[in-house]
Amino acid sequence: MARQADHKERREVFAMAALRVIMRAGVDGLTVREVAKEAGFTTGALTHYFTSKDQVLIEASEVSAKLVRPRMERAARHKSALTALRRVVGESLPITPLVRGYWRIWVGFWERASYNPEVKRVMRDRYEEWRGRLAVIIRRAQDEGEAAGGFDAELAAQELVALIDGVSVQVLLGSGRIPVARQWQIIDSWIESLAEGRIGRPARHAPASPAQGLLHNN
Amino acid sequence: MARQADHKERREVFAMAALRVIMRAGVDGLTVREVAKEAGFTTGALTHYFTSKDQVLIEASEVSAKLVRPRMERAARHKSALTALRRVVGESLPITPLVRGYWRIWVGFWERASYNPEVKRVMRDRYEEWRGRLAVIIRRAQDEGEAAGGFDAELAAQELVALIDGVSVQVLLGSGRIPVARQWQIIDSWIESLAEGRIGRPARHAPASPAQGLLHNN
Repeated sequence: MARQADHKERREVFAMAALRVIMRAGVDGLTVREVAKEAGFTTGALTHYFTSKDQVLIEASEVSAKLVRPRMERAARHKSALTALRRVVGESLPITPLVRGYWRIWVGFWERASYNPEVKRVMRDRYEEWRGRLAVIIRRAQDEGEAAGGFDAELAAQELVALIDGVSVQVLLGSGRIPVARQWQIIDSWIESLAEGRIGRPARHAPASPAQGLLHNN
Repeated sequence: MARQADHKERREVFAMAALRVIMRAGVDGLTVREVAKEAGFTTGALTHYFTSKDQVLIEASEVSAKLVRPRMERAARHKSALTALRRVVGESLPITPLVRGYWRIWVGFWERASYNPEVKRVMRDRYEEWRGRLAVIIRRAQDEGEAAGGFDAELAAQELVALIDGVSVQVLLGSGRIPVARQWQIIDSWIESLAEGRIGRPARHAPASPAQGLLHNN
């Protein structure tokens, strides 16, 4: 009988194979047969380790997170918090083919998360980790005087996560529409606003009723 | 024989049915059989109008765009350009169940667009229209003195599109994580930055090399 360690290792082999299949054919092109073939095993062997496509996807996502995590942790240790923030964000931007591959998986998850509770839970955990990682660095920037105090680091991190997701989607959809330099321009401009304390605070001139624009059209 | 108008009308009936199926079961749950059943026709009738799932999806996207377009055009006519901008953006935020439904379709498209050239082309056209619509209003805000001049309205619109996409993804993934008031806070803060001329310009303190963060980790 296979030991527990072998079992875990084999699951990871399949997860890596799934990653490669997704990068080639998209989440929609991910079939049990393709993954087994890519990993060099029979379909039967794969179904011994995973009982659904979503399980394969979740494991593939765990593996890709594992690959990127140490890079981000290293980037986060820079002595300047703002430089650390910039470098951590840099690890997430779809600048390299590998990271663009991760983004394809990520975007595939978004769709599945909207109707699969397990995928949704895994994605929320992953976002929690990501937002938390950014918030810690932003708080450090405030503590060490690199960013203005008085704003909410959690809210600022949430906004940064949204901006990175949005930029990455545009990059995925039309290579060249947001070239690398432009991606950095958007991020640097945001970090500059953060340093100046203009992020994470309520807008000063917001209209009285937030829903006004939807209720009255003229 | 069916007239051309009937043909077009029937395609729209199927597209509306597809929209309802996607809202219920996701893009992954969209099958020819389900759409035909939802529309009250046989599977054979559907395949007479569409030869692939992607064709059905594209038509569903056209129909949803058609539903939202007049609302946005009306919102854009407000005499204050910044209020018009806010209202047009409001029509796109996943605040109502209907708009949340559109976002599910939209997010499903993103994934498919990464490996289907036809879906990619349609999405790029749709984004072009959306970015263009925002840029026109931003330029009007500059011309009429509501926003500072000297920045690039196209770049600003691109950034706003990214921010809205990113916020909407977060909303889809975890209802309650970004409540409606917080969505408006992010948008209003962005519009305020626009008015003050802090959007669409390069960051002043950007490091010399844009890729620096990726090349050196310490």
